[in-house]
Amino acid sequence: MKLATIRTGEGTRAVRLDGGRLVDLGYPDLGALLAEPDWREKAAAEGTTTYDAEGADFAPVVPDPSKVICVGHNYSNHIKEMGRELPSYPTLFPKYADTLAGARDAIVKPAETGALDWEVELVVVIGKEVRRADGAGAEAAIAGFTVMNDVSVRDWQFRTVEWTQGKIWDSSTPVGPYLVTPDEVGGARPALKVTTTVDGQVMQSDDTGTLLFDPVFLVEYISTIITLRPGDLIATGTPAGVGHARDPKVYLTGGETVVTEVEGVGACTNLIVGDA
Amino acid sequence: MKLATIRTGEGTRAVRLDGGRLVDLGYPDLGALLAEPDWREKAAAEGTTTYDAEGADFAPVVPDPSKVICVGHNYSNHIKEMGRELPSYPTLFPKYADTLAGARDAIVKPAETGALDWEVELVVVIGKEVRRADGAGAEAAIAGFTVMNDVSVRDWQFRTVEWTQGKIWDSSTPVGPYLVTPDEVGGARPALKVTTTVDGQVMQSDDTGTLLFDPVFLVEYISTIITLRPGDLIATGTPAGVGHARDPKVYLTGGETVVTEVEGVGACTNLIVGDA
Repeated sequence: MKLATIRTGEGTRAVRLDGGRLVDLGYPDLGALLAEPDWREKAAAEGTTTYDAEGADFAPVVPDPSKVICVGHNYSNHIKEMGRELPSYPTLFPKYADTLAGARDAIVKPAETGALDWEVELVVVIGKEVRRADGAGAEAAIAGFTVMNDVSVRDWQFRTVEWTQGKIWDSSTPVGPYLVTPDEVGGARPALKVTTTVDGQVMQSDDTGTLLFDPVFLVEYISTIITLRPGDLIATGTPAGVGHARDPKVYLTGGETVVTEVEGVGACTNLIVGDA
Repeated sequence: MKLATIRTGEGTRAVRLDGGRLVDLGYPDLGALLAEPDWREKAAAEGTTTYDAEGADFAPVVPDPSKVICVGHNYSNHIKEMGRELPSYPTLFPKYADTLAGARDAIVKPAETGALDWEVELVVVIGKEVRRADGAGAEAAIAGFTVMNDVSVRDWQFRTVEWTQGKIWDSSTPVGPYLVTPDEVGGARPALKVTTTVDGQVMQSDDTGTLLFDPVFLVEYISTIITLRPGDLIATGTPAGVGHARDPKVYLTGGETVVTEVEGVGACTNLIVGDA
């Protein structure tokens, strides 16, 4: 199944892609749907109200998750380009619901930065409340996958030892358009091509099969620390090819279009507009 | 005014301290009250339902804030004890709503750590939605102050370059008991004694007047990055005296009682129980 949250004249709606139509599932967004213990049956149900998928206005796939936890240093090529050794533990950093944007929203470059960068990521969407989940329990807690462009404000990210202030800018981070269930991508540890293009030029290209810490492990690890709830998002990290690690460095400017794509899951396509 | 969120047999309630009584303000929690544009009038209103303040069961002062943003390296003495230089910018790191606990809750030491530590903090509670607030706008967005013990899992905090995984453990972080409005503590940049005791022994003692980045500046700085919403919490950092910086290092163990207090604002009193 492919599920999404779209914006309509009457607010957001949870939908399922069915051919070229989006079937209204009777919930205001995917967060509300995923909170139902039997969400899989409800997501598969017939619906009478439908919308055209072409030209749909996608909200963040879950607009108001209780937490968005991102993983750094998870592709060996990206770790090497940043000059680091392979880690023993995943590196975690945050985003907040206010940081999220729709998969096709324009992203406003803040006037306060000259170093806006891209990061394509495979994202785990949680479908079940879990704490200290083991392998099977962690796998069962994965509702599906989506795509994020972890847009990063590098100058603020590196002002201090903590990355947070470069990672949580308002409406900076497209996520979506679809939640795709694991059965459609080969399971809970999928091997999928990930790519970023900027105005058509390939900037990142790797495979989620090379993740050091796979989705199931990340659910185990993070749920050791904190309860994961339906709709929570775990961004699994980005591969080599970010603008900040290039020589010379390259950053996003107004008028450019960034496409971040995970094979079989979908793509975020975002025009950069600036300055705010 | 002193406001709180308490747990009752019928769920949580927003209350005002009035002598020895807690007056029910007609809202399920302080987050819901602060979302009202005229919350100050509503908070001051008469009420017919009251509860005994003595023995009240305090929830986190705002149980479900959209964001909890913490500041590191903000007292010069603590910066020096950690061996760092005075910073040009505040260091930010996250907590989530699931991380919070009530001001008198027992805190469970996770079985996964041997390095549970204390950090007393003055906390700003936001009372108005703001983005890119200037001085006067930032000051007007401060609803009041409360107290946090930013309980930290040091071994996990220093597993990687990012502190997040040591800072977001479930129900680890007491915050409350009261939101105290600025007029009761000398304004929006108060100079108040902050202390931590463990089983009566003083571990931290400083003054919020020595903060490098004061509450108004922090609202300006953080709202440049992300929208601050009513109920959001900004923890302003901790002074010298944490267990991890002592020689030898000292950590919390089951059976100890930690009291984190800000003069005129209140105290969190928490029994440590373990292991989970």
